[in-house]
Amino acid sequence: MLDQEGALERSRPAPGADPGPGPTASRPRVLIIGGGFAGLTLAKELGSTETDVLLLDRSNHHLFQPLLYQVATAGLSPADIAIPIRSVVRRHQNVTVRLAEATHVDFDAQRVTLSHGDALDYTYLALCAGAQTSYFGHDDWAEHTLSLKTIDEAVEIRRRVLLAFERAESLPPSPARDRHLTFVVIGGGPTGVEMAGALIELARVVCRDLRTVKAEDARVLLIEAGPRILPAMPAHLSTHATEALRTMGVEPMLGRAVSHIGEGLVELGDTRIATETIIWAAGVSAIELTKKLGVPLDERSGRILVGPDCAIPGHPNAFALGDIAYWAGPDGRPLPGVSPVAMQQARYVARIIRDQVPTTERRPFAYFDKGTMATIGRSRAVAKSGRFEVAGAFAWFLWLFVHIFYLVGFKNRIFVLFSWIWSYVTYRRAARLITGPRLPAPRPRS
Amino acid sequence: MLDQEGALERSRPAPGADPGPGPTASRPRVLIIGGGFAGLTLAKELGSTETDVLLLDRSNHHLFQPLLYQVATAGLSPADIAIPIRSVVRRHQNVTVRLAEATHVDFDAQRVTLSHGDALDYTYLALCAGAQTSYFGHDDWAEHTLSLKTIDEAVEIRRRVLLAFERAESLPPSPARDRHLTFVVIGGGPTGVEMAGALIELARVVCRDLRTVKAEDARVLLIEAGPRILPAMPAHLSTHATEALRTMGVEPMLGRAVSHIGEGLVELGDTRIATETIIWAAGVSAIELTKKLGVPLDERSGRILVGPDCAIPGHPNAFALGDIAYWAGPDGRPLPGVSPVAMQQARYVARIIRDQVPTTERRPFAYFDKGTMATIGRSRAVAKSGRFEVAGAFAWFLWLFVHIFYLVGFKNRIFVLFSWIWSYVTYRRAARLITGPRLPAPRPRS
Repeated sequence: MLDQEGALERSRPAPGADPGPGPTASRPRVLIIGGGFAGLTLAKELGSTETDVLLLDRSNHHLFQPLLYQVATAGLSPADIAIPIRSVVRRHQNVTVRLAEATHVDFDAQRVTLSHGDALDYTYLALCAGAQTSYFGHDDWAEHTLSLKTIDEAVEIRRRVLLAFERAESLPPSPARDRHLTFVVIGGGPTGVEMAGALIELARVVCRDLRTVKAEDARVLLIEAGPRILPAMPAHLSTHATEALRTMGVEPMLGRAVSHIGEGLVELGDTRIATETIIWAAGVSAIELTKKLGVPLDERSGRILVGPDCAIPGHPNAFALGDIAYWAGPDGRPLPGVSPVAMQQARYVARIIRDQVPTTERRPFAYFDKGTMATIGRSRAVAKSGRFEVAGAFAWFLWLFVHIFYLVGFKNRIFVLFSWIWSYVTYRRAARLITGPRLPAPRPRS
Repeated sequence: MLDQEGALERSRPAPGADPGPGPTASRPRVLIIGGGFAGLTLAKELGSTETDVLLLDRSNHHLFQPLLYQVATAGLSPADIAIPIRSVVRRHQNVTVRLAEATHVDFDAQRVTLSHGDALDYTYLALCAGAQTSYFGHDDWAEHTLSLKTIDEAVEIRRRVLLAFERAESLPPSPARDRHLTFVVIGGGPTGVEMAGALIELARVVCRDLRTVKAEDARVLLIEAGPRILPAMPAHLSTHATEALRTMGVEPMLGRAVSHIGEGLVELGDTRIATETIIWAAGVSAIELTKKLGVPLDERSGRILVGPDCAIPGHPNAFALGDIAYWAGPDGRPLPGVSPVAMQQARYVARIIRDQVPTTERRPFAYFDKGTMATIGRSRAVAKSGRFEVAGAFAWFLWLFVHIFYLVGFKNRIFVLFSWIWSYVTYRRAARLITGPRLPAPRPRS
């Protein structure tokens, strides 16, 4: 049980080390890569069953991604939307957690190699490592933009945005001051829309405390290459959202593709926007690991093509779930990269593993679409579920309720709920904190 | 009003820029360096008076230092103990806040130079920039130890401590594993004691979720060169605290001076302690700025020697308050570096400035010592106020109450209170989050 791991370790583990559970005749070992919505749900579903589950993640926490933009805009603290993975699965003695990164999978040998050299054998593998920010071939844009996938990135956005206001406050009216007060959000999906709305509201909160910068001085531009924002929504809700953003002061720029991003500069064809803060919310692709797997990938985003049973074709015991997987259902439309897909796939795969269902007897995964929603700002949101479509304050309450409900951990629910009530009543932000490198040297440009 | 600033600025500020208030015949300009307990109290006391106040700080937030160790041990989030300085003084139109660092003071010209080149004139100056960690001449120890003065440092301690447990969990019983599970706290003052107690409690919380590491495997050593911890306390309370720490599992090492600190190593004479985590809580000295002022400093800690009116001798309009100042009162004992001193000095100086009291008419500052207290752990604390001395659960409740009471901001009070209740009931920690660089490469040492 220990030997299979010792092979690649520098020092052979002695009894008492944590090798993770090993496969035995009766108990299959399930290796889960990633503790996001898919991986954590799968681990919980397999908890206290006749399996040995080993969950690997690079972080020690499960992150509630849908509220990450609120960390970036100083509304919530990082700990409010994160929970230690170990705490979540503690009661399940068959589940082991390990802080590690997978670097290679040998599907034939049923073995995964980790970044620090260990190798782990598995009976079942579940790849749930999610997605990463994609620049659609313009990887050089990464250095000039801020993205929003991890807590560290969210805290960096918060730092940069709050510093921009501080810098503007210390400058006379000038192009430099305008540049600090111009915030560009690229991508009109839910993340971009929520980010833009939250930014303009944050500007209002911060500027109340400033002496020379007024809220009207701050510009938030939302750039979308397609004809409308929130393309997953019905057209009239997109229009509603666009108008709501305009009312709040956001400048939506639709049908405008970014042609160039440089230092402090976004170009849309002939239009040049001078800005110190560019937030990239335009797209995601699968993580780098997928490229090294030697399995068929979706051409556009590099996701792992899976069969109707969420398994990788030819490897019935290896599954890919959530954002890392690509499956175009019977209607040819790929599943959206949202948490309900990940969680439903996890429950589906848990059943296959628990009952050791052979390939031939697996009924295809069916996604039950509960709907989609996006918040725009204070008392403003849009939501759609089946034929039920709603916009405005009621949609906003629905959004709040759903997000509190799905947030993992009692403490987090209380903290987020209280933060929201407090922010709503006081027009403040709970985490208006500049941490990390302070006081960047002024740019040499004028 | 603008000219005096433009001199050193690259671009001359145009009307509408934020020059900060300028001195006029009737309204003196008060320049406050630092937004800690002294600086913020002074700004508030001078709020809405006939003065123009400009408060400079390197951070955008006031930090409630006494609870910083709880951020370091995952009990509280950074935002729970910080509040934007601008929010605190917003209602006082005569108070301006600026994110900046002072690099030079010309007392004769009554001018302060900032790190980015601007210069600011003042009528009254209040140096409230606090203290920094001191290694008593062993500056090379800084790179091997973690200190606890800022939020970033607290988050780094949290990261390192939580990672140490993660690393230990992945290792077989071995010297390397022991090293990860050995936490050394140097300094037996309140910070060291609170840190040691919180660390052993954190170990218990984290190890409940681990599969191979048991709480008993973790060692927390508290090293104090003097004969007893909490030297400001009566001897019997120090003894009580030492025994309480022992009961909790901390190993106090009294009368043991550190002779060497290296990579993963602390030496106390012949005793060598192998550890991955060394927390330095042994002392503070004044910040670097004081050395460049050309004013008399206290030899030991580099603090600014002030007169009984908190002013720098020879400069009756320049004050030094809080941890940056040194004043041995009539009894020859220097004031302790605690927040009540800072706040009382600030109120005292505010009165001098508000009423423009000339040197000859200033009554000496008198410190009213409300007492001192330190928490050790769950339901354990010691407190002393005048002849009132108490230890145990009552002292702990007193400690909780006092800290909630003095915490700035309603939201912070609610959050901290709720975090404490939740931690007390569930034996969990509210912010068990590893952020920043993850998965350090394993050390080459075996």
